Amino acid sequence: MAVVVQLEQERSKKSRGLESLIALVTDDLERVNKTIVERMHSQVELIPQLAGHIVAAGGKRLRPVLTLASARLAGHKELRHVKLAACVEFIHTATLLHDDVVDESSLRRGLASANAMFGNKPSVLVGDFLFSRAFELMVEDGSLAVLAILSRASSIIAEGEVLQLMTSNDTSTGEDAYLEVIRSKTAALFSAACRIGAVIADRPKVEEDALESYGLNLGIAFQLIDDVLDYSAKQALLGKEVGDDFRDGKITLPVILAFRRGDNDERAFWKRTLEDQDQHSGDLDQAIAILERHGSLADTIARARHYGSIARDALGIFPDSPLKQAMTDAIEFSIDRAF
Amino acid sequence: MAVVVQLEQERSKKSRGLESLIALVTDDLERVNKTIVERMHSQVELIPQLAGHIVAAGGKRLRPVLTLASARLAGHKELRHVKLAACVEFIHTATLLHDDVVDESSLRRGLASANAMFGNKPSVLVGDFLFSRAFELMVEDGSLAVLAILSRASSIIAEGEVLQLMTSNDTSTGEDAYLEVIRSKTAALFSAACRIGAVIADRPKVEEDALESYGLNLGIAFQLIDDVLDYSAKQALLGKEVGDDFRDGKITLPVILAFRRGDNDERAFWKRTLEDQDQHSGDLDQAIAILERHGSLADTIARARHYGSIARDALGIFPDSPLKQAMTDAIEFSIDRAF
Repeated sequence: MAVVVQLEQERSKKSRGLESLIALVTDDLERVNKTIVERMHSQVELIPQLAGHIVAAGGKRLRPVLTLASARLAGHKELRHVKLAACVEFIHTATLLHDDVVDESSLRRGLASANAMFGNKPSVLVGDFLFSRAFELMVEDGSLAVLAILSRASSIIAEGEVLQLMTSNDTSTGEDAYLEVIRSKTAALFSAACRIGAVIADRPKVEEDALESYGLNLGIAFQLIDDVLDYSAKQALLGKEVGDDFRDGKITLPVILAFRRGDNDERAFWKRTLEDQDQHSGDLDQAIAILERHGSLADTIARARHYGSIARDALGIFPDSPLKQAMTDAIEFSIDRAF
Repeated sequence: MAVVVQLEQERSKKSRGLESLIALVTDDLERVNKTIVERMHSQVELIPQLAGHIVAAGGKRLRPVLTLASARLAGHKELRHVKLAACVEFIHTATLLHDDVVDESSLRRGLASANAMFGNKPSVLVGDFLFSRAFELMVEDGSLAVLAILSRASSIIAEGEVLQLMTSNDTSTGEDAYLEVIRSKTAALFSAACRIGAVIADRPKVEEDALESYGLNLGIAFQLIDDVLDYSAKQALLGKEVGDDFRDGKITLPVILAFRRGDNDERAFWKRTLEDQDQHSGDLDQAIAILERHGSLADTIARARHYGSIARDALGIFPDSPLKQAMTDAIEFSIDRAF
């Protein structure tokens, strides 16, 4: 009983990580949500219906929160960050819609995915719409520097997704190649989301670089933990399916580590299940057992901590403040999700 | 024999329509092609491979040619139009890639479509890449006005594609609703491609509006003729499949006119084949026979001529020049393709 209480306290302490950050930008976040709803509108009804389905499914709005927090940390006093945070969420949502089509996913955050509910075709096209709308919002804001950062990030995300597709099912993928994929497909948007905060605050390049580094390394840590969660019982508690990556034959860091540390039988298992996609009942449990035997999940978390540390130190040049503390806590949150 | 010769002469006179326009911008078009090849490059090899497949398949480069010609007609003396024309082609190519996935097309311009050759997944993602790269190119050019026009056009294209999806298989679709679809999915990019030419030439709004109107109405005419060609023997000569729209259950203007002019038996035929998608061998021939019986193809061409006339008159404010003449001839070319 005492242990349960302690675990509960521990969990609640951990989850405050993100809550305190959200609390500090809550008014701005409200404005972002309002902007999102207003600007995903179209006279073509299916567009707000489908976009509303995925936007309402919610998630943590982590990326727009990062834009809001970064802008405030850099001293931005106006409300330009609201529109740009909505932009970032639109780009993120567009990539989710296209990802789900590419991965043939049927669930997202525990609900039917947009492609499962509305079909692949409108998911592709509404993704294109949100992406275009994001650029319209940026143009309204009027900063070519912001446009440069987010258009570059969008290209990098697409490159990362293609690279992931090409390494899919290839058990010879190494840790560096994998890191290149997640830097591109996930961390590029985190880093851009943070950097634009400094840009609109009109801060020196060193602060832009610091916030970009914070976002980049936080993004890498975040994705590594996502990859751990895909093999973790914790995932089921969050209402998400376990084993999506395994079923898709995605080669994530836990698998890369286990493959390198394993014996020939285990390598044959990974090749059969992930390369040949020849999977049977019990294979996922077997995969998790192998990952645990080699400490692959724990070591992926350790790798995530490393990037988390870089993110934490990147904020060092900013004076201490509750906001800086909350952004640091967000790193802990991103990693502690794994427990 | 005399008739054949006359037809050949007639055809060659017609096809000069576009050739003279291309000849007038040929150096710039060479630069555009170079820019396209350079800027679709990525260290992720599949991207230039797939993009190269669809870009090399060529087509007429009509949209970038329109940007080049509009810029020169408006008096632009520099080379900014080269990068922006490449942009326009990237946006067009991205929509083609996504269209082919949405339509499950296996052929494009007589060759295997990118999705048939490389799969749907990379086609979606490489489309995203080209779209992002287009915005990067615009940012390099640095005109917020151009960014506004092309981001708005991109949103409208996506809306048009969704609208088309929603009216697909619905034989009650009327001519106005159909016109709304093609204004968005096709003519919006034609009009933006032309308008940006005037913008970079720094011309008065009246010239921007004139070139936009030229592009918009040319685009509508162009799409109407495309819809005619899909039921025409001429299409087969161009190495394209006939009947794609019919098989997809797309409700285009020829069908809309025939449905309204037809009797109950014919309406039952359209409902069975296009709404219920219950198609048998011989149905396409039957469809073409009904379209011809009601003059639907000829009258769709007549509608196209109407929009072509508006496009021609829009250029009226520009002084006569070989370029203006060639742009006018391009309207004829767009319509005469039907013969």
